[in-house]
Formats: sequence, structure tokens, C-alpha cells
Amino acid sequence: MSADKYRHKWWGWGPEGIEYDMESRPALWPWIVETGQFGDDPERLPPIEFAKIALPPSRLPDVLSRALKQAVGGGNVREDDEDRLIHCYGRSYRDVARLRAGIVSRAPDAVVYPGGHDDVVRVMKLTGEHGASLIPFGGGTNIAGCVEAAEDDQRPTITLDMRRMDRMLVVDVESMTADLEPGIFGPQIEAALAPHGLSLGHQPDSFIYSTLGGWIATRSAGTQSNVYGKIEDMVAGMTVVTPTGVIETKPLPAASTGPDLNQLLVGSEGTFGVITRATMRVHPIPEYEDYRMLLFPSYRDGFKALHESVREGYMPSLARLSDEAETGLMFAAKRTSKGIERLLERPVKRLLEVRRYGRPAALVVAFEGPRRLTRELRRGAMAIFKKHRAFDLGRGAGESWKESRYDVPYLRDFMMEYGTIADSLETATVWSNLIPLYEASTETLRRIIRDVTGFEGYIGSHISHLYQTGACLYYTICTRYKEGSTPEEVIEQYAEIKRAATETFVKCGGALSHHHGVGYEHRPWLERELSERGVASLRQVKDALDPDGIMNPGGLLG
Amino acid sequence: MSADKYRHKWWGWGPEGIEYDMESRPALWPWIVETGQFGDDPERLPPIEFAKIALPPSRLPDVLSRALKQAVGGGNVREDDEDRLIHCYGRSYRDVARLRAGIVSRAPDAVVYPGGHDDVVRVMKLTGEHGASLIPFGGGTNIAGCVEAAEDDQRPTITLDMRRMDRMLVVDVESMTADLEPGIFGPQIEAALAPHGLSLGHQPDSFIYSTLGGWIATRSAGTQSNVYGKIEDMVAGMTVVTPTGVIETKPLPAASTGPDLNQLLVGSEGTFGVITRATMRVHPIPEYEDYRMLLFPSYRDGFKALHESVREGYMPSLARLSDEAETGLMFAAKRTSKGIERLLERPVKRLLEVRRYGRPAALVVAFEGPRRLTRELRRGAMAIFKKHRAFDLGRGAGESWKESRYDVPYLRDFMMEYGTIADSLETATVWSNLIPLYEASTETLRRIIRDVTGFEGYIGSHISHLYQTGACLYYTICTRYKEGSTPEEVIEQYAEIKRAATETFVKCGGALSHHHGVGYEHRPWLERELSERGVASLRQVKDALDPDGIMNPGGLLG
Repeated sequence: MSADKYRHKWWGWGPEGIEYDMESRPALWPWIVETGQFGDDPERLPPIEFAKIALPPSRLPDVLSRALKQAVGGGNVREDDEDRLIHCYGRSYRDVARLRAGIVSRAPDAVVYPGGHDDVVRVMKLTGEHGASLIPFGGGTNIAGCVEAAEDDQRPTITLDMRRMDRMLVVDVESMTADLEPGIFGPQIEAALAPHGLSLGHQPDSFIYSTLGGWIATRSAGTQSNVYGKIEDMVAGMTVVTPTGVIETKPLPAASTGPDLNQLLVGSEGTFGVITRATMRVHPIPEYEDYRMLLFPSYRDGFKALHESVREGYMPSLARLSDEAETGLMFAAKRTSKGIERLLERPVKRLLEVRRYGRPAALVVAFEGPRRLTRELRRGAMAIFKKHRAFDLGRGAGESWKESRYDVPYLRDFMMEYGTIADSLETATVWSNLIPLYEASTETLRRIIRDVTGFEGYIGSHISHLYQTGACLYYTICTRYKEGSTPEEVIEQYAEIKRAATETFVKCGGALSHHHGVGYEHRPWLERELSERGVASLRQVKDALDPDGIMNPGGLLG
Repeated sequence: MSADKYRHKWWGWGPEGIEYDMESRPALWPWIVETGQFGDDPERLPPIEFAKIALPPSRLPDVLSRALKQAVGGGNVREDDEDRLIHCYGRSYRDVARLRAGIVSRAPDAVVYPGGHDDVVRVMKLTGEHGASLIPFGGGTNIAGCVEAAEDDQRPTITLDMRRMDRMLVVDVESMTADLEPGIFGPQIEAALAPHGLSLGHQPDSFIYSTLGGWIATRSAGTQSNVYGKIEDMVAGMTVVTPTGVIETKPLPAASTGPDLNQLLVGSEGTFGVITRATMRVHPIPEYEDYRMLLFPSYRDGFKALHESVREGYMPSLARLSDEAETGLMFAAKRTSKGIERLLERPVKRLLEVRRYGRPAALVVAFEGPRRLTRELRRGAMAIFKKHRAFDLGRGAGESWKESRYDVPYLRDFMMEYGTIADSLETATVWSNLIPLYEASTETLRRIIRDVTGFEGYIGSHISHLYQTGACLYYTICTRYKEGSTPEEVIEQYAEIKRAATETFVKCGGALSHHHGVGYEHRPWLERELSERGVASLRQVKDALDPDGIMNPGGLLG
């Protein structure tokens, strides 16, 4: 298949053969050993052998198998173990932990690769007629549990892998819109738009391995969301195949025609239907771009600087302010091979020594757009940053960050080899609540990790995705688990940490999720988040569009 | 009542005593006489006497009347003819024409003024228990038919006038959010925010007489929507009382927690429930502001200039490009008393004479924000405008436009006194379709007005509300109707014109409405606009939230 380069290895992130580049980061391993309270030669725990994983036998009736093959072509219906295993889970910690341990109690009974809208309509019809259920699947990078079969669903489960639907159907250069199929991966989108001088400008951390449809289904956020918005802000129109018919929305710049159907469909996580086309707002490739890294004496200083720049109207296109702990990891993880040491080390030392900064906080910031206007924007923002004692490490450091920004999931997989729980958690809140929420969440994580594992672990955080009214708060955690735990016990330790953090987010005014989605991970909190009546009304929409509940029964609405 | 200054006269726009200032616009009347093909001394047709209007008797059962009075206080339940009449209709041409002719076949049976969220909950409960129906009512400026009782609804109808709920409940200066009650009028919002250095920045043409709740319920757009968005972009969280319970959404900067409930509730035109609180995104009062007026040799030149400025990233905060016909009206309607003649007349003459511009097209444009950044933005935009042969009439002309921008509805009422049909129609489309849609719509209007009335009429248009992907296309029309027509025949002539224009909008890829809403005026096209399955799903939401159909049965979903 043409998109095989975007296919994950069965046990982790990214394709076979690509792993975290530890060699060019000489400071990282010693930092890990110290932070992780590892001994001298920590034990490695590789994944189980593929051959040893026993998938539950496929429930797909022969008659449905034949009908599906007739509908989409024989080669596009897969019932082999490898395809089924790759489509069992997303790529959350819980997912990868189960895969590495070979825990698979439920798998899709077939994986179908539709070639276009009409194929999807046919598969939807067959799914309904044969009493099966259907899970749309993009790149499989989801970490909230949005693509997994429901444990208690007795029906045959078909996973619909959308990667063959990867075309740009129409581009309207004048209107700056592009009609795209949902199975198109991040790099494919940019490659299709670039010859027209256009860009979508949506770069989530999963960019290389995730699809437009997956982004839309989960309300994904790209690094430059400050100026281009989250994916929901980029959707102008959609075609969605539901079990009861096709919904089409007109690709208008704006409208006043009742509730916004696009925003009812965006974020529906495959529970209402299958997206087969999206008209996306795109923009010219920026004339000018400036990535750089700055250091603040403390996270609080950086916070004040960011908040003021937003308030004063100087919104950078990207901003990512790391707390002191995450800044420590960034420095430890810096590569030596690209001259970044020279760029980073000297000023850092100078800061630490001369200015008596304690533990600095790094801000990665970018400005992009028309040259003169963007320079003026940068000037204004930098003036505010400097007022708050920012030290500018320059564009080299920013470019280095940009180059390695998609690497973190590989580090997660690397760390899992050493018996750890490693996860990312995220929320969002208004500016006035960001520091209180940060303090409460960090305290919760510190306590729960210690209580559950007996280790201190690593807890790093950053603020990113700025809005006029607030921002996203993002955590990366890593801790050894209790020694001698079974895989099931490890997953329960993970779940305790995840539960405590999520509870704190929701209790303290944070979003249940800012861009990872709901899935089964966050579903228990959904009624507290959207109010009981709010969730009930979504369930009614679900009942109306999908009366037999065939769409993604393990997902958003259960 | 404190908000009585925002109350319309029973037969038209704005409070008693305020009318269109024709005296200080000496060129306007001759222009009207010529354009309108009026004779020397056209007949005036004043509204019917109030006393002659026979309202249908109130159907409100005594027991419900007593219960409502107990729930919200006796003085807040009105059953008198004047209150009922004022709440019969919005302020569309059709509405005002009926009022002026005394055509009232259906009126609310009581008008209730709730004092807060709990009052609304109580009234909702009583409405359900007593088998009545309920229509939320803000300023009553709606021109799509969103506040009118359904002709065939046999139940008692209660109109809920929200104007007592006009408080700012919370302002969070750090997060730039404000919790507002829905009955607060435009000027009240700005007055409440100004002491905190903040502004909502939402100025629709109805600003003075319309409420936040009405804006949210109909997806209103303010003149500065280019930078602050439409009202739906400003809503962070809401409380909505539905017949089956209260929906509350968290006021987050962004979230990934399923479909966006806010966007399901915004634009629901009172058919799902009653908004009792909205957390709005606000912003600092701009440090710098620059309104100005420019002339282009033609509408096409202006269009190219605007499109290029958006494409190149130089988005003005306000832009309103009038076609040649509307520019003619603007010049005719200029005041002499404020020195604008001097500002306009000389350069216009110079243009016309020296540069041989045919009929120029006026662009009103504004830039606002932080001083230096905004100046750079203006510089970039003006450079593009000048490339397309813009002649800068300067800030005085822009300020004059700003001062009189809320006057147009008064001119509509003035013209109705002379036996005319006068209406505004609006749509939106992508950039590549704007000129084709403009041509098709103008041609349709020209043909239908001639066919239906026998007159040429006035057809003026402008582009406003710019987006990356397109803009709003707005028409103002005025024509004499067939001489000797009865009021019913006049309304049918109006309806024929409205139908033909709407049909062209929808057929040619325009929005059914960009910011006026659906109501009964646009409902016949709703399924073509949102797809059959799309409307069906909204009806299911309606059935779920309001199973007995008590909310605004004459509105959006019928």
C-alpha cells in the first residue's frame, strides 16, 4: 500500500526501523539513569514475540466477508492477524503496554480499506445489514482510546482503515480552500498543497503518522494553533456518511443557518459516521518564518511574559513554555551533532553563572506571516519577553527544536523498554486559572506517582496553544513502576495516575481534554464536563443518526 | 423599565421620537425622487392608528396567568395590547408592513419579563405544565422571523422578553472573559466592560437595540468580525434552560471533548431553550483605531484589492466595499453639517474629472489594535489598495461613516411612508464565487423587481465581513410597489422578490444567510442548505431537548 511508510510497528510508534536517536544525545542517558532512580545497568524488557500473541478468532461471517470483498475489492479486506493486531488499539501508554505484553482480548474481525466515498457508503450499508459494527481508523495515533472495539460488543467488528482515501480532490487557490479525503496523512497534505503555494499549517506532534480524518474526528491541535486555530477552525465543509444517510455541509466562510452542523460532526470520534470529504481552509505558505528559543529565570516569569504578549495583541504563531523540569529534560536531550551544544551551552552557562538564574524555563516561540508585519509582531512580543528577563538563545536553538519536535513518542517507546510508565496528559484553562491548575496538577501527579509506584518519577510540563482567553497545559510524565509488577498491575498503576490527574483537571476548571479527545480514557468524566443534559442531547443525536449503534460503540458515547 | 430606551415604537425601528435625519442630508430627497421614479409630491402613507388594531383576544388561561405572576412578580407579566403588539413581530420589512397596516392575526398571549436564571426555569416549567409555548425575545430587531408565534399553534403563547436580565455577572480581566446575562443590550455591554479597559467588539447594525442573547441565538455578525469573529466565535461557555433540563458548558479557551455543544446551541433561534448566561471572550479596548474611506475606480478594482489584502495577510478589522449603486446612495446621503461635504466633494470631483473614473466604488475600512503593529498592518493594506488605484478620502470620511452607521433602518421606515418595499438581503460565499454570485443576484433582483412592481427600484450592494476564504455579500433594495396594491398584495410582492433572491443565493453557492438567521423567512431552503439528513438530525436534537415542542414553534425548525 502506498501509505505503508505511515504504518506503525505493531508494538509501538512509527514504522519498523525508526527508533529514538539516543546516540546523538550523549547527555540523555545519564540524566535518565539519575532522574529515573535506575541502577547501573537497568534491565531491558523487550516486547513479546509477535508469534506468541493469541488473537481472538475472527467473528466475521463468511457471507459478510464475501460481500465486503465484492464491495471494495478482495485485496482491501484483510482478516490476517497482523492487520487485525495493528488495528486493535491506538498508541496510548495503555495501548502500547498491552501490545508489548501481548494482551489482546478483543480485535477487529476484519480491516477494510475503502477507496472512496462510494466504498464507504457500501461498507456502511453492509455493516448495518449484517449486524456488525464499524470503527473508522486513520493513522492509529490516538491516545485516548477512540479506535478500540468495545469489550462487550458481541457483533463482528469491522475497522475501516481510511489510508487509501488520500487524495486532494479540489484546490481553490483564490478562495484558499482544499477538498481533501480523510485518509490523507500530514506530510501528504503539505506535499499536495505546496505546488499551489498553500499550506494547511496543522502540525500536531503526530503529524507524520496521523490523518486529516483523525484530526477532525478528535479536535486535534497543531503547534501553530495560535494563529491558524485548531482543526475545527479549519473545517469549512464536510461530507459524512452516517448509518441513516449522508450529511453534507456547504463549504462557506460563515453562516447563520441554525446550529453549526460542522461543529456537531467535528469531534464526534467516529460515533456518528465516517468522514469522506472535508473542505479545509488553507493559507499561503508564509513569506517569513522565525523560530527561536528563549530562557526565562523561572516558569512564572515566562508565564507572565506570554500572558502579557497575548493581552497586548502580540500573539506568536507558536509558543511553548516549558517549566523548569521540562527545560531540564530539553537540555539533557539536546543533540551534539548539529552545533546546538555551542548555541545552547554557552549562553545557558552564562545565564546560570552571571545572572544567577536558578533553574531556567525555556520558551520556544515562532512568528510567521508576511515579512514586515511579522517582524513588527516579533519586535513587539520580544520587547515584552525581554521586559520579563528573557534571554534570547536565537534562531538556531529554535530550528533545532523544530527539527526534533516529532521525536517524543519514540522516547516514550524507548523508556517503556526499561520498565516505566510514560504518558502525556493535557488540559486547557483560562489565563487566571493556569498557574493554580498547574500547581494543583503537579502536586497531584507528584503525590500519586509516589504513592502508586514508590518512585519520584519525572514530571515535566509546558504551556502551549495560546488563546486570547487561556492556553493548553501539557504534562509529560515518566516513572518506573513497582518492581515485579505483572503487565496488568502496571496498567492499573498507570490507570491510577491517569485517573488522579484527570480528576484534578476537571475539578480545578481545566478541560477534560484540549486536543487528545475523549475515547474510553476520558469518557467517565464526560457528564461532569458537558453537563448531564448536554451529554444526553449528544446521545440523542447518536440515536438519530445511528439508531442501531453500529458506529464505534467503544468510543465517545459508549 | 430601565431598558425602555431600547424599546421599538410599535410600528417601526427605534424608540418613539427618533427618526431618520433627512434634514441634514439635502441631496438625499432629490436623489430618492429621481431613483424611485416618484412624482413631484409623493403621497405619504402613515401607519394605521394604534387604537384601530384589533389584536386577537389573549388565550392565556387565568390559572397560568396567576402562576406566572407568582413566579416572576405581578408587574413582570403583561397581557395588555401594547406589550403584546410590540412582541408580535421582529423588524423585517414584512413585519413592519404588517404593523403599519394593522395586520395582526396572531399575537403572544402574555409577555413575561424574567429577572434571572431561576425565573426562566420557573417559567419554563409552567409553560410545559400548562401546555403553552414559549418564545424568547431580545431586542426584537430580528428580520428573518425568529420571534413570531406559529399561526397554527393552538396553545397559549408566552413571549419571554429578556431585557430585565441585563447584568454583567463576572468579569475576569486576566482571562479576558465576561459572564453576561442575555438581555443586555449592545451599549450596556460596552458600558459594563469599559471601566475594565475591555470591549466585546461586536457592533451589528442593530447594536443599539439588540441583545447579546439575540445575537447568540441568530449567529449575529458585528462590523469588526474580520478580527473578532462572529458572535459564535466569542462564546466561550453558556447556560441554557431547555424544557428537559439545564445545559451548562464550561467556559474553556478550547477543548477536545466531543462535538461542540456551544455551537449546537448558538444559532438555535430559541428552539432548543433559553440562554440565561453566556461567558464571552472580550479584548482590551484597542490602543489605536483608524477608520477611513477610499474610492476605487470600480467595484471590481475594490474587490481585487480587498481579496489581495486578505490573501497577503493584511486583514483590516472592518471592510465594507460598496458597489457603484450603493456608493451613489452614500454620496447622496452625506450630511452637510459636519464638514463631510468638504472632505468628500472635492476629491470626488477631482477623481471624476481628472482621472476619468466612471462611477466610483467606496471602501470603508478600519484598522484597530496595538499602535505600531496596527500601523504596519494599515501600511501593508493601503499599499495593496493603492496598487489597485484606491483614492484615500481620509479619516474624516471614515469617521462620518462610523457616526451614521446605525441609521439605515430608520431610512427604511422613512421610505415605507412613501409606498415602497425596502429590504436588506445577505449571503456569503468563497472568494472565487463572490463576483459570479454578485452578478447573478443583481441580475435576479433587477428582473424580479421590474416584473413584480413595474419599477426599476434601487439595488445597492456591498461586500463586508471578510474571511480568509470569502466574505458576506449584502444587498439593500428599495422599490415602489404596484400602485393601488392592498397591504396583502404589497407583502406578496415583497415575498416574490425575497424568494427569487434567496433562491439565487442558494442555487449559486451562497449561504442561505450569513448573519440574519433562518426564521420562517429562510426555513423553506433549510434542507437544501444543510442536507436532508443534516436538518433531520437537528430535529432529533430538538425532539430530545423539547419533546413537547414548546420552544418557539414558529421558528427555525417549524
